[in-house]
Amino acid sequence: MPSHIKPAQPERRPRRKLQTPNPEVRERLTSAATQLIREKGFPNLRVEEIVEQAGLSVGTFYLYFDGKADLFVNLVSDFTEDLRTRMRAVYGTDRPAVQRIWEGLEVYLDFVEENEKGFLYFVDAADTMMTSEGRLSTWTFRVHAENLLPVLKEAMDRGEMKKLDPELTAQALVGLSQHLATYWIEHRERYTRRQLAAFINTFTGFGLAP
Amino acid sequence: MPSHIKPAQPERRPRRKLQTPNPEVRERLTSAATQLIREKGFPNLRVEEIVEQAGLSVGTFYLYFDGKADLFVNLVSDFTEDLRTRMRAVYGTDRPAVQRIWEGLEVYLDFVEENEKGFLYFVDAADTMMTSEGRLSTWTFRVHAENLLPVLKEAMDRGEMKKLDPELTAQALVGLSQHLATYWIEHRERYTRRQLAAFINTFTGFGLAP
Repeated sequence: MPSHIKPAQPERRPRRKLQTPNPEVRERLTSAATQLIREKGFPNLRVEEIVEQAGLSVGTFYLYFDGKADLFVNLVSDFTEDLRTRMRAVYGTDRPAVQRIWEGLEVYLDFVEENEKGFLYFVDAADTMMTSEGRLSTWTFRVHAENLLPVLKEAMDRGEMKKLDPELTAQALVGLSQHLATYWIEHRERYTRRQLAAFINTFTGFGLAP
Repeated sequence: MPSHIKPAQPERRPRRKLQTPNPEVRERLTSAATQLIREKGFPNLRVEEIVEQAGLSVGTFYLYFDGKADLFVNLVSDFTEDLRTRMRAVYGTDRPAVQRIWEGLEVYLDFVEENEKGFLYFVDAADTMMTSEGRLSTWTFRVHAENLLPVLKEAMDRGEMKKLDPELTAQALVGLSQHLATYWIEHRERYTRRQLAAFINTFTGFGLAP
């Protein structure tokens, strides 16, 4: 879906908006870009290659995106929305709140594994990319933290979890999960996914005190 | 001090090494750059401004650095070394290992406060910058995790801390501290430093279980 979030620095003069953008055309462009990012990364990717892969013209590309940075922000926004939808499906059940939070971690690790290369490139680029909503990484952290917040508050209210500052707790869980998932992807030979998840569960559940 | 770590993509043809580099000249260049980064950030900074601030010539700059990226990697390396030295002073005492680890957190937060603007720019840029040692941020995380590792192992061996995978534990503490310090700097109006440190201590010490 089209995103309201934009690179902070416009890439070209404002384009005329399409009266009736075609979701299938946009999807062909984002799919082609996603595949090419998996194959060769983003920094060397050219708009010409994306449209060739999609079987479309450069002119069509610029009807849908202002340029490469705008496309990247849109991709991150799409993936963030996809992950958020999957998280909500878990967070919205009637199981104990703490259990839903741990299930959310598994959904997150599924997502990281499915999108391994894109995920690493996202981690690489999102901290530098300034958008209309601030740093792209700050925005994605905020989206995921906001998503987690009501479940955390519920867990705290029901005594399933310590009463700590809910916003800091959400940031801690989201930040820690992304950092350790990145470390894991970069050291797949050292840890299985099960070991990683078990570590995160113990560390965040019970801490380091003996 | 000169760094062995280099940007992955050389910025110019290899320069003739100075036979006897002058540490004072290098210091004038890095101090000028640090001050300018605090004032206006790094992306728009030009080599010409650095040498003007330092009262030196462009030619002299290129005797010491290959370009802006090389300068940035050198600055990060200097600051990392500074932080590491300060951490070692705390880690090397004979107080209980767990206490040394919490004291290390205070040293880290001192450092973040002193270098607030440079710290945020580092977080912005370090994930994208590829160096001879991999991603710059991966390198700094590794340096700090390696520094922390012996103290963690000591705490685990002495029963002052749960026996978990020491490498993952080090990454968890270093990654969590940087993420929450960034969040704190971006939301200074919401949390005092004392609140942040107390949260990190409780979360990492005892976890979220009630």
